[in-house]
Amino acid sequence: MTQQVIYCNDVDATLNSIIEGGSYNRVAVLVDSNTRQLALPLLPCLSNAHIIETTPGDDNKNLNALTHVWQELERCGATRNSLLVILGGGMATDLGGFAAATFKRGIHFINVPTTLLGAVDASVGGKTGINFNGLKNEIGCFAPATAVIVSTIFFPTLAEQELKSGYAEMVKHAMLHSHESFEQLLSFDFQDIDYDLLLKLLQESLLVKQDIVKKDPTEQGIRKALNLGHTVGHAFESKTLADGKPVPHGYAVAWGLVVESVLSHIMLNFPSSDLYALARFVKDNYGAFHITCDHYDQILDLMHHDKKSRGGEINCTLLKKCGTPTINNTINEDDLKAALDIYRDLMGI
Amino acid sequence: MTQQVIYCNDVDATLNSIIEGGSYNRVAVLVDSNTRQLALPLLPCLSNAHIIETTPGDDNKNLNALTHVWQELERCGATRNSLLVILGGGMATDLGGFAAATFKRGIHFINVPTTLLGAVDASVGGKTGINFNGLKNEIGCFAPATAVIVSTIFFPTLAEQELKSGYAEMVKHAMLHSHESFEQLLSFDFQDIDYDLLLKLLQESLLVKQDIVKKDPTEQGIRKALNLGHTVGHAFESKTLADGKPVPHGYAVAWGLVVESVLSHIMLNFPSSDLYALARFVKDNYGAFHITCDHYDQILDLMHHDKKSRGGEINCTLLKKCGTPTINNTINEDDLKAALDIYRDLMGI
Repeated sequence: MTQQVIYCNDVDATLNSIIEGGSYNRVAVLVDSNTRQLALPLLPCLSNAHIIETTPGDDNKNLNALTHVWQELERCGATRNSLLVILGGGMATDLGGFAAATFKRGIHFINVPTTLLGAVDASVGGKTGINFNGLKNEIGCFAPATAVIVSTIFFPTLAEQELKSGYAEMVKHAMLHSHESFEQLLSFDFQDIDYDLLLKLLQESLLVKQDIVKKDPTEQGIRKALNLGHTVGHAFESKTLADGKPVPHGYAVAWGLVVESVLSHIMLNFPSSDLYALARFVKDNYGAFHITCDHYDQILDLMHHDKKSRGGEINCTLLKKCGTPTINNTINEDDLKAALDIYRDLMGI
Repeated sequence: MTQQVIYCNDVDATLNSIIEGGSYNRVAVLVDSNTRQLALPLLPCLSNAHIIETTPGDDNKNLNALTHVWQELERCGATRNSLLVILGGGMATDLGGFAAATFKRGIHFINVPTTLLGAVDASVGGKTGINFNGLKNEIGCFAPATAVIVSTIFFPTLAEQELKSGYAEMVKHAMLHSHESFEQLLSFDFQDIDYDLLLKLLQESLLVKQDIVKKDPTEQGIRKALNLGHTVGHAFESKTLADGKPVPHGYAVAWGLVVESVLSHIMLNFPSSDLYALARFVKDNYGAFHITCDHYDQILDLMHHDKKSRGGEINCTLLKKCGTPTINNTINEDDLKAALDIYRDLMGI
């Protein structure tokens, strides 16, 4: 699974040269109503592309939207030699990638992520899919984009919350990579954003991810390291959905990283100084996810239903230290409850 | 893309040993109403499997059936470590393979083809999919089965027409392989079927296919050789569908092989003796597909809409001689019409 990832802010020229080089007989572009208005005008090379519009929001990443993309590809006369450009966040690249990977058993697609979360989490790595039956990413496949064009030109129009949501995944990659990366990321200034620095950090972050994905494209082993923060994070995210108060994915990941760092400290001696630094950064930038001990059983239950749990056991990636992940740790309920206690202390709730 | 293909008539023991070896936490089996009644009772190892039933017939290989399989996998608690056994013809293995390949981004599946056509055409090679928007196999992906168990134990309950339909694909493989294979296949006695000989011929036939698929799993080049007979065959099949008188797939392929052998003779000097022998065998066993010159334009039009046509040109695999295919031959309309004339002569219509 090889995938060309290009880091640049000259997106239109770059995309144009890939399209020209591919000799595609049709080009379609998948947008949502936001990216159609804010991002598409920045890419004049797509002025003749067939526009396929989807409704933004993860709850629209469903079978209806998928069928719509397939039908529109059909309608514009797309063949095996056609191209789908996907211009949007993770919802669009997940949906569009799956549609392209299954249309006539697979056509080329190019991801142009327009959000930081989309860039860091969804656009690279070949995971595509839709939600089904109330379960996230339940249906999908592994299919690499022909190319991914990563830039920061679309980010100035993002809400601060959206930017921070993506940044949490970058913190995760830094923790998987090295102590140096981890410290560098915690010093980023969200009050005065340096987009050139952000593109550089984003590139380093994606190289960490690509390196892991390359070793294990279908998540049989080491790719599970990328689930750091997500076992607890997904449970938190599901709880907020169940409570009717959904939070951005990256916020749940940020809180999940804190809890799983506590677990790493308890089980694998992860340094307490790093744990404190992470907790402070998360509290300052993401606030705290408020839980009481009355919620522990619900959270445990949600973790048991995770796609990655095996045979009723809760399975989790943890860290010995930054740069040294270990996969397939079985978490017992007492340790988890203790970790949630400490998380609440660290967050001051 | 590796795929274990097992040729044996001890299907229950073989399947059982694969299931035991896989340590699957759930086993589901996809059947249709026919194979549930006729084939499933021959496999006691599946007595505890969750049964997913679909409606037979290629027109049921659609999004509704796919959704049903996904929902049933969900309902029986299937996870990434579960297995789907597919017991049926090409409709079931196409549908079930696609459902399994996309459920939680891919679970293991085992094909147990119950028809000769399913065994030779659909169970091996990794093509999965469904019909969509009135187009055959429009949505799907390349995903190899974990194992394919090829046997003849289910064939005695097949209608003669079903057996012959599959046999046409074997003739195609023989023509791609060697003159010797071709002659051997033409001498098979359908009046007194030797099932042991048939299993041996089937194995040889699938080895030809596997050899080609291995070289080119996603059909960029030489795998197109397997389309021999299908460019014209699909057009004939579509015509019978449009006329409301559908024929078995293999019958259309048999007639397509004759027309494309004529084209091979006109364009590449394919030996006339082999052309005559093939035409006689097809006429004797499959009858003739009746067309007049008034139908030529309709057939040409259908060929232009083939998934494999590029830029408006009709693209076809032809043979210099048995064992020497050439892919990507562009067919002009005059040659095609001449070939259809000769086909009608050979068939005596």
